Amino acid sequence: MKAAVVGGSGFTGGELLRLLDGHPEFEVAQATSRSYANKTVGSVHPNLRHLDLRFTEPTDLESVDVLFAATPHGVSMEQIDAFRDAADTVVDLSADFRLPREEQYDEWYDGHERPDLLDEAEYALPELNRENLPGADLIAAGGCNATATIVGLLPLFENDILEGDEQVVVDVKVGSSEGGAGGGDASSHAERSGVVRPYAPTGHRHEAEIQEYLGLDVSFTVHAVDMVRGASATCHVFPNGPVSKGDLWGAYRGSYEDEPFVRMASGGGGVYRYPEPKAVAGSNYAEVGFELDPTNKRLVVFSAIDNMMKGSAGQAVHAANVALGLEETAGLEHTGFHPVGAP
Amino acid sequence: MKAAVVGGSGFTGGELLRLLDGHPEFEVAQATSRSYANKTVGSVHPNLRHLDLRFTEPTDLESVDVLFAATPHGVSMEQIDAFRDAADTVVDLSADFRLPREEQYDEWYDGHERPDLLDEAEYALPELNRENLPGADLIAAGGCNATATIVGLLPLFENDILEGDEQVVVDVKVGSSEGGAGGGDASSHAERSGVVRPYAPTGHRHEAEIQEYLGLDVSFTVHAVDMVRGASATCHVFPNGPVSKGDLWGAYRGSYEDEPFVRMASGGGGVYRYPEPKAVAGSNYAEVGFELDPTNKRLVVFSAIDNMMKGSAGQAVHAANVALGLEETAGLEHTGFHPVGAP
Amino acid sequence: MKAAVVGGSGFTGGELLRLLDGHPEFEVAQATSRSYANKTVGSVHPNLRHLDLRFTEPTDLESVDVLFAATPHGVSMEQIDAFRDAADTVVDLSADFRLPREEQYDEWYDGHERPDLLDEAEYALPELNRENLPGADLIAAGGCNATATIVGLLPLFENDILEGDEQVVVDVKVGSSEGGAGGGDASSHAERSGVVRPYAPTGHRHEAEIQEYLGLDVSFTVHAVDMVRGASATCHVFPNGPVSKGDLWGAYRGSYEDEPFVRMASGGGGVYRYPEPKAVAGSNYAEVGFELDPTNKRLVVFSAIDNMMKGSAGQAVHAANVALGLEETAGLEHTGFHPVGAP
Amino acid sequence: MKAAVVGGSGFTGGELLRLLDGHPEFEVAQATSRSYANKTVGSVHPNLRHLDLRFTEPTDLESVDVLFAATPHGVSMEQIDAFRDAADTVVDLSADFRLPREEQYDEWYDGHERPDLLDEAEYALPELNRENLPGADLIAAGGCNATATIVGLLPLFENDILEGDEQVVVDVKVGSSEGGAGGGDASSHAERSGVVRPYAPTGHRHEAEIQEYLGLDVSFTVHAVDMVRGASATCHVFPNGPVSKGDLWGAYRGSYEDEPFVRMASGGGGVYRYPEPKAVAGSNYAEVGFELDPTNKRLVVFSAIDNMMKGSAGQAVHAANVALGLEETAGLEHTGFHPVGAP
Repeated sequence: MKAAVVGGSGFTGGELLRLLDGHPEFEVAQATSRSYANKTVGSVHPNLRHLDLRFTEPTDLESVDVLFAATPHGVSMEQIDAFRDAADTVVDLSADFRLPREEQYDEWYDGHERPDLLDEAEYALPELNRENLPGADLIAAGGCNATATIVGLLPLFENDILEGDEQVVVDVKVGSSEGGAGGGDASSHAERSGVVRPYAPTGHRHEAEIQEYLGLDVSFTVHAVDMVRGASATCHVFPNGPVSKGDLWGAYRGSYEDEPFVRMASGGGGVYRYPEPKAVAGSNYAEVGFELDPTNKRLVVFSAIDNMMKGSAGQAVHAANVALGLEETAGLEHTGFHPVGAP
Repeated sequence: MKAAVVGGSGFTGGELLRLLDGHPEFEVAQATSRSYANKTVGSVHPNLRHLDLRFTEPTDLESVDVLFAATPHGVSMEQIDAFRDAADTVVDLSADFRLPREEQYDEWYDGHERPDLLDEAEYALPELNRENLPGADLIAAGGCNATATIVGLLPLFENDILEGDEQVVVDVKVGSSEGGAGGGDASSHAERSGVVRPYAPTGHRHEAEIQEYLGLDVSFTVHAVDMVRGASATCHVFPNGPVSKGDLWGAYRGSYEDEPFVRMASGGGGVYRYPEPKAVAGSNYAEVGFELDPTNKRLVVFSAIDNMMKGSAGQAVHAANVALGLEETAGLEHTGFHPVGAP
Repeated sequence: MKAAVVGGSGFTGGELLRLLDGHPEFEVAQATSRSYANKTVGSVHPNLRHLDLRFTEPTDLESVDVLFAATPHGVSMEQIDAFRDAADTVVDLSADFRLPREEQYDEWYDGHERPDLLDEAEYALPELNRENLPGADLIAAGGCNATATIVGLLPLFENDILEGDEQVVVDVKVGSSEGGAGGGDASSHAERSGVVRPYAPTGHRHEAEIQEYLGLDVSFTVHAVDMVRGASATCHVFPNGPVSKGDLWGAYRGSYEDEPFVRMASGGGGVYRYPEPKAVAGSNYAEVGFELDPTNKRLVVFSAIDNMMKGSAGQAVHAANVALGLEETAGLEHTGFHPVGAP
Repeated sequence: MKAAVVGGSGFTGGELLRLLDGHPEFEVAQATSRSYANKTVGSVHPNLRHLDLRFTEPTDLESVDVLFAATPHGVSMEQIDAFRDAADTVVDLSADFRLPREEQYDEWYDGHERPDLLDEAEYALPELNRENLPGADLIAAGGCNATATIVGLLPLFENDILEGDEQVVVDVKVGSSEGGAGGGDASSHAERSGVVRPYAPTGHRHEAEIQEYLGLDVSFTVHAVDMVRGASATCHVFPNGPVSKGDLWGAYRGSYEDEPFVRMASGGGGVYRYPEPKAVAGSNYAEVGFELDPTNKRLVVFSAIDNMMKGSAGQAVHAANVALGLEETAGLEHTGFHPVGAP
């Protein structure tokens, strides 16, 4: 199958090119970039120096089987007709088709140009929405911080441990690749190294996705920390009634034991006892774990993903695999490294 | 005045030596180390290579005006008589005298050898306990994570915004120096670089100090992140009634405007809009800031300290200054750097 | 084919397990570890948590097709008979069989227990020794710093630009994984973060390999810098006569254009114009590039590898592929990431 | 005395403000910034949040005793008359007055606007040029990489171990603050973290300073590594005749034992046996050490500085102290930290 990547010079675009290049069923027919048209892909993404592929102008889309759009928020809603003309299946990695209702875009974003299509789009996260993906022709990859949170909390809803009216604080720690390939002063190495920086103290847009897909209002705060790839969500949950470790293991095993890209990491010995972004860096895995705090009637849920993979490009390819009836794990088998620095 | 540092080869011991060496009123008469006796201080602490000072055995204490004990938890309670024989004023940086009641040590630590002295010790944090420090002869420097939390929340109690029965989640991010100069596999560079690691998911001992000194039960979780110095506490607070920005500014200004080592960082422009460990690294400052989240009836308080300074050695010297009637800021004037990496 | 990894809990052992698990022709039959026998592989290497495999005692070796020994220097020379009893092909990742003559071990190491076998062993690096690998039954993976240097300079010898009597300074920068999974004070995160540390100012043992395989005496110095994976060699070369860019491109293309794991990075635009460890992190690629300094009659050659891959485990698997007649690139196709932090 | 900083919002400008604020003899009368005029100094330099000082337009200079110019290369040569009108003593931190001859600017820079003043300017480095600083009214702080190199090699020239015709390779490793507060893609956190990047393979402009002040042509290469502050120079020196450790100790002690800001670090035990940027971060110290490589008739000299301090702002203040007859170490007593991350 032929695949195209629109917006191929950004970080998620490059990640898509890496994944599609190694995918047994896809061939990269086109990678577009306004800024780097005619330059080799390897001049922007040094890991792909061995590829014989040059960026083309985004105005001139080839006909392909799948088009992945890795453009900034707001572009896909404007270009969506051209994307759909070029490909039967469109997977969008921006926020443009993640939410189903126009008023959500009015509240959390700057409105929407094509509200008529919102209903049609499918949220990409297979753990949440696998049954609606086969045959989908417009797929919206979830936001990275929302994905980390949803993957962490989903089993509690699927197994009736939470109902949606509980108090939940989500404290997220993210790497610098979330800011994308541009970035201003705040993302320079000298300013960004070694930080613990409250970059979204309140009001982060991913709250809307969590509200939509879990039915839960979360108190959400995001901190920038010193890594490049990775998102770690710590969910401080106050259930309405008592919850045991057995309940939790039952819930998480029930939801995830057949999932190819979710691993449990909850206690045990050694250095890595809970989910950590390092342990999944470069892979499509999400790690999930938990701990009980009986004194405070609190349940702490930890989840960790690579924001470039499970949090965007990997999730997109995973969903495309499901949508097109391919092997779910195709092109996504990389298991991560040990040791690895700040991935 | 003559000062001694017992346990001078550890990280906090070295920090004390650095501060005392630059202090206008103190002269370092002795630095002890079991492992490095007879070696130069500079062979262990390379920043002090220019000092002409060698470690001595801890069994042979000189008579000094102030003795700072930077020994592991449990040592001071055993050696306290020797310390007090050697010095009129003892400042302990371990947990051994931070809590006033024996049952707290039974619950949170492994009991206490000298419960008779607990009542006598004064908690070092001047912002909390300044009035009791002058003339104190046994002073206990607070725990770094407790200090970050207490400094963040104290004005809310002093100004009746919180009463103590509210739900408060404290999510702390700390650097590797908290683990001390030893450290096993988990603190090796290859394993510790780039982490977001839940190292104390629940049950951290500093909860006891926060409970004692604020009268508040907190849901407390500590993460290791990639920095060496620094502790950042994000307090997610759910007040019982409405709170305005004006109330908060009033409370924080009321409590802190005359404090020499607390700075507000709450909004505004530029890269550094909220407290960050980087901005105070190497200094005795605490930075405090806040943001309101009306949707979730939440107040988010951020505080940042250098765990080696405000969180231990700097707090200890600050308290000694107050106890001995010296200028409060003596030896602690360093203002931090910009830019600085992972401090 | 069945493969075993002896010393599977160390860093290179874990890397071998990762590669063999993803290799289309190998099945991991056994992973030994003295310290972690009976524990899961995933408890030590968190990236392999999904594997259903436990460490076994090293005294009880199964019969396999290939045995990879990832034990500390000195172990293989003692255990070699047991290794060869267990497997037809043994690939050793220590220094024990890298050099052909006993006196080299007397000079650079602590002698050798089995000098009778030195002649039999083949140096693993395919770019240097591919023609002798098919059918080899004892293979010695090269040292990481030697590999980086040899790959950088080899084309200059193969194409008669250097003869071996030139003055060459090699200044190597390496990550913390070179120190292995143990490591003392010097490798703790607090001490090792952010360093530029001369850890082998002179006399590094890899000089012997370079001397042996290039016929060149190099002035060799190794610095520890802040990354986990990676070795970067900067070779300052003073050729006996004039050399042009055309000569160099001819030489490097001549030697490497058909090599599957060598990429040129020599000038051009963008951020990544020369070899960097980041660009090859996690991959088996070596990147090589150069620049002329006519003023000083100097040629500067840069090379970069992942020390865990091209510098040890990847090189070992590559050589095993060649020795056993498999596809050279099998199990080694990963191309690296962009962006990636301190890999 | 009143001091002004022109270009106060850049990294070196901020460092000057930090030093002058803590200096017993200077009062900061003015800090200019084109981009941040009317903003507080603390909004740009978070470590200085407690200062009550706002940036002013650079066009409106007050009359002061000393003016420090921390502007980009090329600005001082244009504004020098205004600077000298405003202050009796001008210390320039750019390259504009470091070299004495116009043809050097033609060769290494883009020419010079005021060649008439080149002869008048004094190079700031006191270890090299102390005797000419008292009373100097135009002082040029040295380049950071040149300073690291000159401090490392100077004793070899002063004590006749080198004559200037020897082959010397200098391999420098630098932090991201050298790039200044702006910086494009290459200095973003995601691209710059964890690098070993050859950023000046050949032809670095600081070669000119080394040539001028040591009389030595060096083969010079600069690498970017993962730290923010710091420059480490490794000088691979091939002396014309034999040199002993005794000769070297004699030379270095002879040159430096009375220098307040040079420390020797050459062998011994512990983790920090040679110069490292970490050990001097934030301080005005240079550390110098060496090792002999008899096999290769090589001498390896290591030196480490904080590029923001000894390599620019600290050197500038040090020279101003000497020029104005103040205590040499005034305002520069900070000794650095231990531990510290990537400073």
